[in-house]
Amino acid sequence: MNVAVNELFHKVEKLSDEVRQPFAASRRIYVEGRQPDVRVPMREIELAPSRGREGLEPNPPVTVYDTSGPYTDPDVTVDLCAGLAPLREGWILARGDSERLAAPSSIFGRIRAADDKLRHLRFEHLRAPRKARAGGNVSQMRYARAGIVTPEMEYVAIRENCRLSELRETYARAGYLRRMHAGQRFGAMLPDEVTPEFVRDEVARGRAIIPANINHPESEPMVIGRSFRVKINANIGNSAVTSSIAEEVEKMVRATRWGADTVMDLSTGRHIHETREWIIRNSPVPIGTVPIYQALEKVDGKAEELTWEIFRDTLVEQAEQGVDYFTIHAGVRLAYIPLTAERVTGIVSRGGSILAKWCLAHHRENFLHTHFEEICEIMAAYDVAFSLGDGLRPGCIADANDRAQFAELHTLGELTQIAWRHDVQTMIEGPGHVPMQLIRENMDEQIQHCFEAPFYTLGPLTTDIAPGYDHITSAIGAANIGWYGTAMLCYVTPKEHLGLPDKDDVRDGIVAYRIAAHAADLAKGHPGAQVRDNALSKARFEFRWEDQFNLSLDPDKAREFHDQTLPQEGAKLAHFCSMCGPHFCSMKITQDVRDYAARLGTDDRSALDRGMAEKAEEFRRAGGKLYRDA
Amino acid sequence: MNVAVNELFHKVEKLSDEVRQPFAASRRIYVEGRQPDVRVPMREIELAPSRGREGLEPNPPVTVYDTSGPYTDPDVTVDLCAGLAPLREGWILARGDSERLAAPSSIFGRIRAADDKLRHLRFEHLRAPRKARAGGNVSQMRYARAGIVTPEMEYVAIRENCRLSELRETYARAGYLRRMHAGQRFGAMLPDEVTPEFVRDEVARGRAIIPANINHPESEPMVIGRSFRVKINANIGNSAVTSSIAEEVEKMVRATRWGADTVMDLSTGRHIHETREWIIRNSPVPIGTVPIYQALEKVDGKAEELTWEIFRDTLVEQAEQGVDYFTIHAGVRLAYIPLTAERVTGIVSRGGSILAKWCLAHHRENFLHTHFEEICEIMAAYDVAFSLGDGLRPGCIADANDRAQFAELHTLGELTQIAWRHDVQTMIEGPGHVPMQLIRENMDEQIQHCFEAPFYTLGPLTTDIAPGYDHITSAIGAANIGWYGTAMLCYVTPKEHLGLPDKDDVRDGIVAYRIAAHAADLAKGHPGAQVRDNALSKARFEFRWEDQFNLSLDPDKAREFHDQTLPQEGAKLAHFCSMCGPHFCSMKITQDVRDYAARLGTDDRSALDRGMAEKAEEFRRAGGKLYRDA
Repeated sequence: MNVAVNELFHKVEKLSDEVRQPFAASRRIYVEGRQPDVRVPMREIELAPSRGREGLEPNPPVTVYDTSGPYTDPDVTVDLCAGLAPLREGWILARGDSERLAAPSSIFGRIRAADDKLRHLRFEHLRAPRKARAGGNVSQMRYARAGIVTPEMEYVAIRENCRLSELRETYARAGYLRRMHAGQRFGAMLPDEVTPEFVRDEVARGRAIIPANINHPESEPMVIGRSFRVKINANIGNSAVTSSIAEEVEKMVRATRWGADTVMDLSTGRHIHETREWIIRNSPVPIGTVPIYQALEKVDGKAEELTWEIFRDTLVEQAEQGVDYFTIHAGVRLAYIPLTAERVTGIVSRGGSILAKWCLAHHRENFLHTHFEEICEIMAAYDVAFSLGDGLRPGCIADANDRAQFAELHTLGELTQIAWRHDVQTMIEGPGHVPMQLIRENMDEQIQHCFEAPFYTLGPLTTDIAPGYDHITSAIGAANIGWYGTAMLCYVTPKEHLGLPDKDDVRDGIVAYRIAAHAADLAKGHPGAQVRDNALSKARFEFRWEDQFNLSLDPDKAREFHDQTLPQEGAKLAHFCSMCGPHFCSMKITQDVRDYAARLGTDDRSALDRGMAEKAEEFRRAGGKLYRDA
Repeated sequence: MNVAVNELFHKVEKLSDEVRQPFAASRRIYVEGRQPDVRVPMREIELAPSRGREGLEPNPPVTVYDTSGPYTDPDVTVDLCAGLAPLREGWILARGDSERLAAPSSIFGRIRAADDKLRHLRFEHLRAPRKARAGGNVSQMRYARAGIVTPEMEYVAIRENCRLSELRETYARAGYLRRMHAGQRFGAMLPDEVTPEFVRDEVARGRAIIPANINHPESEPMVIGRSFRVKINANIGNSAVTSSIAEEVEKMVRATRWGADTVMDLSTGRHIHETREWIIRNSPVPIGTVPIYQALEKVDGKAEELTWEIFRDTLVEQAEQGVDYFTIHAGVRLAYIPLTAERVTGIVSRGGSILAKWCLAHHRENFLHTHFEEICEIMAAYDVAFSLGDGLRPGCIADANDRAQFAELHTLGELTQIAWRHDVQTMIEGPGHVPMQLIRENMDEQIQHCFEAPFYTLGPLTTDIAPGYDHITSAIGAANIGWYGTAMLCYVTPKEHLGLPDKDDVRDGIVAYRIAAHAADLAKGHPGAQVRDNALSKARFEFRWEDQFNLSLDPDKAREFHDQTLPQEGAKLAHFCSMCGPHFCSMKITQDVRDYAARLGTDDRSALDRGMAEKAEEFRRAGGKLYRDA
């Protein structure tokens, strides 16, 4: 190994140590399914007991959905240079409908593999790619429609439930199920318990997808659909300007730790191929890409020189690396481009503008549209899902919900039907920038014209006037559109419109979007979503500070903020909160009220009545002087 | 002056310099009214020209609402030790219905004034307080109902308009009025132009308030009501744990700079009286307080020792200092307290729990309720507005919209009617923690039971699981409830539930809330709200980076983030954005499309058609070979 090789590998090894910290008071547990090797990871958060009437009352741990992968499991050996274990490999092999290729099918893939100058960047443990046997289709949709419940389907069913049925009584006793509010669902179906058969049915009818390329066996299956928890995606990726392979791997691992359900690699610089390999081999979540970005690199950034052949080769190259879903801007039709000419911000999707440029240069229909059926065949051979790109999404409030946007959306609906004829899993991308009163129309149009295929939106941003805070302008829109039925929310970081996100921006973006997704789950009345809110609020009320931190979306930040005001360790056990200080605290008063009731050994309500009468008696005995002199 | 005196004054003087920086490319302008001394401040943001077809095309400046006070006007001399100029004094005197008192009326106020040990903390230029002549009422509501359009009413009418009528044509020519979306208003009325008579009518019917204590003549009038721009409040205040006078003054000035329409001083430590004096004398925005906090200090934190006399004296003390609105928790009725006993987080409002404790200790009705008419008389004598406190607001998702909360809300409606009988301006406080699907009910109940008195809500937070990010969990709720009709949004900082906000937290909270308020204005279709979005998006599209920064809510942050990726000064003029780098940029492509159309000297649409035909011709001439070989 030469010096350059050592450098990258050294960086990555160092990172391996850093990202291995489990969350405080948490352990990774596995719930077994019926099918072989179905072991579904979750995170169990241990809590301290409450000080109750008769001494300590235990608070059962809370089980939460976990996207962090094996990194947070101290029992698993992780080596970023070797990649994660291929947990789905047995299932893929058992189906017997795919074969291992002797070499990559793509020309570009073969060239890169043979290029010795790339050795210092290349992921070492390359696996030969798999592909469906000739003419085959290995998509989860194909199996679902054939009535087969795959291990992936069982896995996501168990994962969605987070043990709610099993723990319901335990949770109820601890008060975690108090006042679970009914949701407002806008037609979404959320079963009390997700069964594998329900998942199969949703995938079969196209209302949900399980992105699961057979060349990404390391990923832990997850489902995207309106009937399930709202998911979030984090974008990473280097550019011509900045960032390196080790940084991107770090961003990916940290993104999943903070809660990204999928990660899109939007790299545009050199070494996209090698960066992607490192990311996929180490990613516990599905990876999405926008293949046109790489195709453009191959023609030196000259959009007009793009060809179907180059694009096709890129699709195959990426599919064989294991990309789980592709953004394909096949709805940017030639006829729609003039509809954008009078917009305030024209075409802002990078992919959309590349294709618009190509269409104008050639005065031809978008080649992704003309070759759409061939693309479907490639997707089916590896089970890559479509994310039909909204290349004409609005880039500002003024352009929201205009003709260009909805014309493209309707085309995406037509393409969805073609994809479904090929049994290819499909979701639809959405905007963008939309003021609040126009968000609902986006969801309604999408459901109607795309036949309930999962909607996957970028925000939307609800105003244009806050660059530097677009994770917030867009979390507002994301929470609303998630509530209305969007299945996955693509995050926006504080750097949107200004620069490339560093790891702090990635964290800020992800947490803002976990908030939006959870707020949407609550608003839909997702069964069990409120458990975590209730457990945290109970801890808050009882001044169990550590429990409050550990149940929060970002325990480190919560702890850090608390410690800025009250840094002493003792303060975390103190019976006062850091806002009011030790002298007076509203929570303490309410607790006094309850304690008083409890001391009387009866239920709170009648105790209060008795207590008040007692107090009045005391008052009368003391002479009835109500007010002190001033 | 001794050393201690010098220290505070030195700190404050230093601060005077710091807070005097005008915003980049902005100047403070004044629009004159018809009545004497009505000079309404606004901020005008200068913009660079666009590069158009025939050379440079000017972009007219954008006029925005400005809360920053004289601090950003380089023509005004500001000395924090002397306080701001009393701009309303002439109007108050001209009405001839108030008189200057020889000394403060409150016992506490007189004791503090005479205490030499406080000299080093005391604001020097104390003004003798004013009060309505015996039995008088100096409230804006009284005048409104008498048919009088006060200078304050004219002032806020001009302020709300931000010169839209005057600038409409200029804006239209520059494209700032493109595709102004219709709003969804939920019954709110938003006139195209706010007239002084409209303001008078709204104040008379109680649908809006103008907080304007005659002892705070330094404040620039503003209006709170569903028919106007959505406002935001920022809380500041020291506590027993931390913070000092100079820090609080700094927070107040910075809060107004970043966009707080009002500021509440929630101090709970020692020297509340002196801190408040400093704040009011230097505040260009109305100041609110929760007088029960100070009353509690006077009885050493023992809620049960509170008396009406002590509270009354506190009201008078604060009214004579110039507090513009008081939070009064008169709806925390004895009978409602047991309704909170089974909540997950009981009573979380500090004021609410103080009064609950008092009620339980005495088994008596809340003395704020029994003395409500006397309170009204005090309010009327100084024109302090009610902010009827929601002492029983929910402190977590589980407790949202429960019986306790709505029972109190209905009582607040009854109290509103009593206040209105006294011609006292009144707004109503609202929650708190509410999942999205239950927010609308809060607004509807409030409108119905409080007769359209302005609603003033804290958030609401839409989930409990993100301590450290509650400015975001609550900005989501705030944007929604603002859209539904809430008139003012009380900010929440990232430190909520964890600690006391420092100045960075105040900034984060305010910007998050300016976003929520603006998103709500857009959603309601507030006339002119979209101008700033359109102007900024146009600048963004044309790579006028400095204009984009200067039009944003937080220009410093936007600039800082941009410079992290592309620090060179030249990059701000470059025709590429920092996300994609110089090689390729989607905005640039769209610009190419337009430029091409422009070169043909006709409108975009037919140019595109011609351009495409030309290109196709070129293509045929070149041999018709569509795809290059791979």
